[in-house]
Amino acid sequence: MWCVSASLDQAIDTRTIDRLWAVVPAGGAGTRLWPLSRAGAPKFLLDLTGTGRSLLQQTVDRLTPLVGDRVVVVTGQRHRDQVTAQLPASLVHRLLAEPSARDSMAAIGLAAAILEHEDPDAVLGSFAADHVITDETAFAACLAEAVEVAVTGRIVTLGIEPTFPSTAFGYIEEGERLPGHATARAVASFVEKPPVEVAREYLATGRYRWNGGMFVAPVTLLLDELSRELPELARGLRAIAADPASLESIWPGLTKIAIDHAVAEPASRRGLVATVPGNFGWDDIGDFAALGELIGTDAVKVLGDRDLVLTHGATGLIAPRDRLVAVAGLTDVVVIDTADAVLVTDRAHAQQVKQIVAALKERGRDDLV
Amino acid sequence: MWCVSASLDQAIDTRTIDRLWAVVPAGGAGTRLWPLSRAGAPKFLLDLTGTGRSLLQQTVDRLTPLVGDRVVVVTGQRHRDQVTAQLPASLVHRLLAEPSARDSMAAIGLAAAILEHEDPDAVLGSFAADHVITDETAFAACLAEAVEVAVTGRIVTLGIEPTFPSTAFGYIEEGERLPGHATARAVASFVEKPPVEVAREYLATGRYRWNGGMFVAPVTLLLDELSRELPELARGLRAIAADPASLESIWPGLTKIAIDHAVAEPASRRGLVATVPGNFGWDDIGDFAALGELIGTDAVKVLGDRDLVLTHGATGLIAPRDRLVAVAGLTDVVVIDTADAVLVTDRAHAQQVKQIVAALKERGRDDLV
Repeated sequence: MWCVSASLDQAIDTRTIDRLWAVVPAGGAGTRLWPLSRAGAPKFLLDLTGTGRSLLQQTVDRLTPLVGDRVVVVTGQRHRDQVTAQLPASLVHRLLAEPSARDSMAAIGLAAAILEHEDPDAVLGSFAADHVITDETAFAACLAEAVEVAVTGRIVTLGIEPTFPSTAFGYIEEGERLPGHATARAVASFVEKPPVEVAREYLATGRYRWNGGMFVAPVTLLLDELSRELPELARGLRAIAADPASLESIWPGLTKIAIDHAVAEPASRRGLVATVPGNFGWDDIGDFAALGELIGTDAVKVLGDRDLVLTHGATGLIAPRDRLVAVAGLTDVVVIDTADAVLVTDRAHAQQVKQIVAALKERGRDDLV
Repeated sequence: MWCVSASLDQAIDTRTIDRLWAVVPAGGAGTRLWPLSRAGAPKFLLDLTGTGRSLLQQTVDRLTPLVGDRVVVVTGQRHRDQVTAQLPASLVHRLLAEPSARDSMAAIGLAAAILEHEDPDAVLGSFAADHVITDETAFAACLAEAVEVAVTGRIVTLGIEPTFPSTAFGYIEEGERLPGHATARAVASFVEKPPVEVAREYLATGRYRWNGGMFVAPVTLLLDELSRELPELARGLRAIAADPASLESIWPGLTKIAIDHAVAEPASRRGLVATVPGNFGWDDIGDFAALGELIGTDAVKVLGDRDLVLTHGATGLIAPRDRLVAVAGLTDVVVIDTADAVLVTDRAHAQQVKQIVAALKERGRDDLV
């Protein structure tokens, strides 16, 4: 038996957003944050901001004031125990463990199908487990409006105010304002990660927002839209929800596809997708350059024990473990120390960490990635 | 009983240079090579060139074909056991252990006094334990001429052909050619480490050579010259040689002074010092920039296990220990990994490693230096 609806009848905090269930897909290795982030200890399980809470825990901490314990975390079976250890007891029985990674549509769709099975009126909000949001009040306001729009029969993406012409994110092109809502607009189109010149043009128009992958939709609408594009996949997910025992047999045959391609983009072409603009200090901590920004404005940013860091004429981000890290005379350097690997790079080359990981895999050093 | 003259009567290789005894002062921490070099594991005990032999061992290996086992190593009591472990058995009984560090005059002077006590005709050659020489044939030829000149009653320094306007070494100003010798010249003056403009002028004249601290002199001349400047020090050293039991009582009162200031400079003003030019690939491995040069011409120079190094678009010197060291996109970087500290710098800042060590001492982290 799925237990996700166990508290639907329980008393709900009056500040929570009625009908909304938060789904938190906890996957992705965070390759560019290697060697902190590993296949066995992915980004979402790590305390990357020095707060004492992992990114997953921060995500849950941010959501529970809004939805109580209507939080469903979806993760891989490999990480089930680690995730369980990090979650509050009240959420553990709702944890969904995927038998294998089948991309975001299957992960979120499974949660949607289970919620639909228990409560066809449920509204699902999806929030990655490894992003950071600094202004939780602004986030809550944005989300509340998104739910209001969603219940009118829309898939609603949170449209993040871009702060620079990033080439690492897809963009949402805004359309007309939606009558009856404070700030919501139709989505004219989704666009893939652009080259930097194009990103600059987007910012100049004022009509484009970052697609941070957060969206809100009635579960039935979401699955019905999926059913138009990929009926087999929708059918499989609903079958699992109706009979949890079928998970192991159905899951491996499900189509691997990102939810953007499976639902959001097709639905936007049919005018069914809206966006609510938000400026709540969102960051996906895509690499060590981003992590450095997040940690602060000191010339030398330390993630960990400051007593283990000694610099002379250096600036950058240093993550010591249990040994001294000494840096002399480098600008914007990145030094990440771990038990079995030390990474040295700088801000400008932070993206190249993924090539290091790729090279390790080529060498057969899966023990290190 | 001192044992240094034990083999004087033994058969000597015909290629050896008669009367010459090699004295090898093994001291100095090599601060700018931290964290490889430590107070407890100084530079001379380390295999810094990846040959499987420490710098001390390489020094001894270079000298024994020339002087047989007439090699006296002088080190601190702290390093006595480590030095003993590295020396061939035939040299161990000659090892001199200083009760405390009293600078180079006392260290070399003690060896000189002991040699003089056993054999007043002995000629002493002094060779630091932590320098590298790549052309041993040229070195042997230079040394042979230096001994020829020394036995005429001179203190003879080996004058190293400068290859760039170094500011890290003192210079020897050459005077007139000495009649009857192939290349030897009088020393006009010793000059301290110059600013770079001055060093450039020196090189332009063709009359200046690096002072690598290698010299050859009859032991009695050396001690008599010392006696003119610092009679107490000379008397103390000769007293210890006459009565080894007095070492512990006399040693702490000996003047701390470098041999250059105590003997070489005063004697040069009296026209008693000569130099024999040499171009034998000498290097004192003053910092990681120098070490990188020495190790080779690869873009990525590895001191240690290449399998532990992974780079992407990087150049420089990497010394792994037992963990992976990954570097992305840095030029002329230096990464030195050890059990309790990792150093990151680059070629241009290699000298600043001494500031790191100074800061560690200020922090009271003597365990790390």
